[in-house]
Amino acid sequence: MTDANPYIGKRLEALRAKFDSQELDAILITNEHNRRYFSGFKGSAGTLIITRDRAALATDFRYTEQAGSQAPDYEVVRVMPGLGWLTDTLGGMDVSRIGFEADEMSVASHQRLVDALDEAGGGGKDGYSMVSTSGIGAELRAVKDPDELALLTKAIEIGDRAFDEVSARIEPGVSEVEVAWEIEKSVREQGAEALSFETIVASGPNGARPHHLAADRILQEGEPIVIDMGCRYQGFCSDLTRTIVLGEPDAKFKEIYDITLEAQQTAIEKVEAGMTGEEADALAREVISKAGHGEHFGHGLGHGVGLEVHEGPGVGARSKGKLEDGMVFTIEPGIYLTGWGGVRIEDVVVLENGRARVLSNAVKLTP
Amino acid sequence: MTDANPYIGKRLEALRAKFDSQELDAILITNEHNRRYFSGFKGSAGTLIITRDRAALATDFRYTEQAGSQAPDYEVVRVMPGLGWLTDTLGGMDVSRIGFEADEMSVASHQRLVDALDEAGGGGKDGYSMVSTSGIGAELRAVKDPDELALLTKAIEIGDRAFDEVSARIEPGVSEVEVAWEIEKSVREQGAEALSFETIVASGPNGARPHHLAADRILQEGEPIVIDMGCRYQGFCSDLTRTIVLGEPDAKFKEIYDITLEAQQTAIEKVEAGMTGEEADALAREVISKAGHGEHFGHGLGHGVGLEVHEGPGVGARSKGKLEDGMVFTIEPGIYLTGWGGVRIEDVVVLENGRARVLSNAVKLTP
Repeated sequence: MTDANPYIGKRLEALRAKFDSQELDAILITNEHNRRYFSGFKGSAGTLIITRDRAALATDFRYTEQAGSQAPDYEVVRVMPGLGWLTDTLGGMDVSRIGFEADEMSVASHQRLVDALDEAGGGGKDGYSMVSTSGIGAELRAVKDPDELALLTKAIEIGDRAFDEVSARIEPGVSEVEVAWEIEKSVREQGAEALSFETIVASGPNGARPHHLAADRILQEGEPIVIDMGCRYQGFCSDLTRTIVLGEPDAKFKEIYDITLEAQQTAIEKVEAGMTGEEADALAREVISKAGHGEHFGHGLGHGVGLEVHEGPGVGARSKGKLEDGMVFTIEPGIYLTGWGGVRIEDVVVLENGRARVLSNAVKLTP
Repeated sequence: MTDANPYIGKRLEALRAKFDSQELDAILITNEHNRRYFSGFKGSAGTLIITRDRAALATDFRYTEQAGSQAPDYEVVRVMPGLGWLTDTLGGMDVSRIGFEADEMSVASHQRLVDALDEAGGGGKDGYSMVSTSGIGAELRAVKDPDELALLTKAIEIGDRAFDEVSARIEPGVSEVEVAWEIEKSVREQGAEALSFETIVASGPNGARPHHLAADRILQEGEPIVIDMGCRYQGFCSDLTRTIVLGEPDAKFKEIYDITLEAQQTAIEKVEAGMTGEEADALAREVISKAGHGEHFGHGLGHGVGLEVHEGPGVGARSKGKLEDGMVFTIEPGIYLTGWGGVRIEDVVVLENGRARVLSNAVKLTP
């Protein structure tokens, strides 16, 4: 009995299909998200060593038992001080050109590795070469399989419930950071292991600043309050934004909110597989621009979500890649008015049969 | 009015004194802890560019205002897409050999930087050279100044209070993870921004395993319970371990506990500036070995604590560096018996006038 992930075989196959373009014989995976994605192993330390026909997971004594159970597609190698565990493993694998994740590996680690391989010898007649790779894992992870979708759905459910519970009891007089902390407690007590990013509670004028997190400002009746929040469940991230008002919204709020909501609903209804991220972005941007607020929507429509809270696909005004079935991303238009505040509404969707299915179910103000 | 740190000038002076050994004209600091230490800037993104007579802090639009206030010793440079902000800044600085933190910078970032400098030209008659450096910040940070000691003391006070409050209300029947979560809530509600590491609550046999964190196991009367916890306050880390028993301890517990406590007290009383980390370690190890448990104390006596929960100085059986006044480190001997559990007792001390002053004040079982 293992808690193995049945999709690992397919993920490895897709990874190996990328070897040809750089003539790789093997790749080392050290990024924590890619390690989990390609192996199923959930420990906090380890290196994957993947060739065309073998796959090894190297980790230290803390995790060797767990590695065997979570990653049965892999041979488990025990990491010891030094790099002998790696050069020995590679030495037995008949490989020469070894890819590594250049955005992940430090210059010092890379140098130690090159030195260790030189010293060990091997790698065929030309010796080993270390080959920079970039973005291979991120590219494959943009399309989700059923296992990922189930965990994303669960993360989103936890976030939705936290928002619904906490927002229902917010009253004027509490501070932004107090609201953020209530949300954090709620997701943790529901089983999330962490937040997926620091919670944003931006009230009144704070809502107009894109980098505002949560401060000591006291929430007041009638002002817009942007809450942007997410949690991490079994590694997968949720991401949700709602804009609320305590008490009765005024005409200004209703106007800005309704434009934003219409932009969001338009994008959700019209986005299709085969569109570029740029085209999806334009669906919402057009609604906001027509209402005269084009210059107040200063960010992209959304972004992919998965093991990272920001990952592929790109869904912004310069995203040239095509959206495909199985991709999971946010749709989150916003309007920001200096001195007044902001409105942003964000749901996560998955593309299925060419169209968006909304995964978020948190309460949303409707006109 | 700024919230500037008055020790930045001295820290920069100490950093520049390290330039000679590698003939550096400048150094780029990208590690988050070193960035904060050398500049006072608390934002989450930025690069320090430090020459013999100038210091610049490059950060993005979110942080430029905060950077000016927190780091008045620095010129603030606004980061824009690409690397022009960096090559322009360096171009105006009359430097050629530029150090970088090789353990921090990724291979891809390093390559982009080398390419951008090549393209920009400059760097004097031989052009620019990028020089690997390692551990410069860590080495300087091992000795604390009064500003750091005040923040460490505050972090430790928060941790102590959390332990005292939570441990007083633990009863048989709660789980390890429930205790860990109560501790986390307590430190956060006292103003800590985060845990400094995942809380360990290791009850009964779990306490014998060095990598155990906190699980669903239910705490029972009479068994040893190791609680190892820390929080982060204004960037600085606390670290505390206590071993407790619910109900009446038995003779076995008393025996193991008393040996561990004697080892800890001996080390606290006898450690002196000028000793090596290895000699400090031996003070406690000798007590445990004489009691017949040498092989059950399978880790070092302690480690430095500061902006990182594990930093210099080394205080273990292979630590050759000397302990100095101003260093802050843990003293945490332990005895681990497979099947029974573990006892570990940990305080943080600072060396002052040659001797250890204990900073931790959490309740400790005494014979």
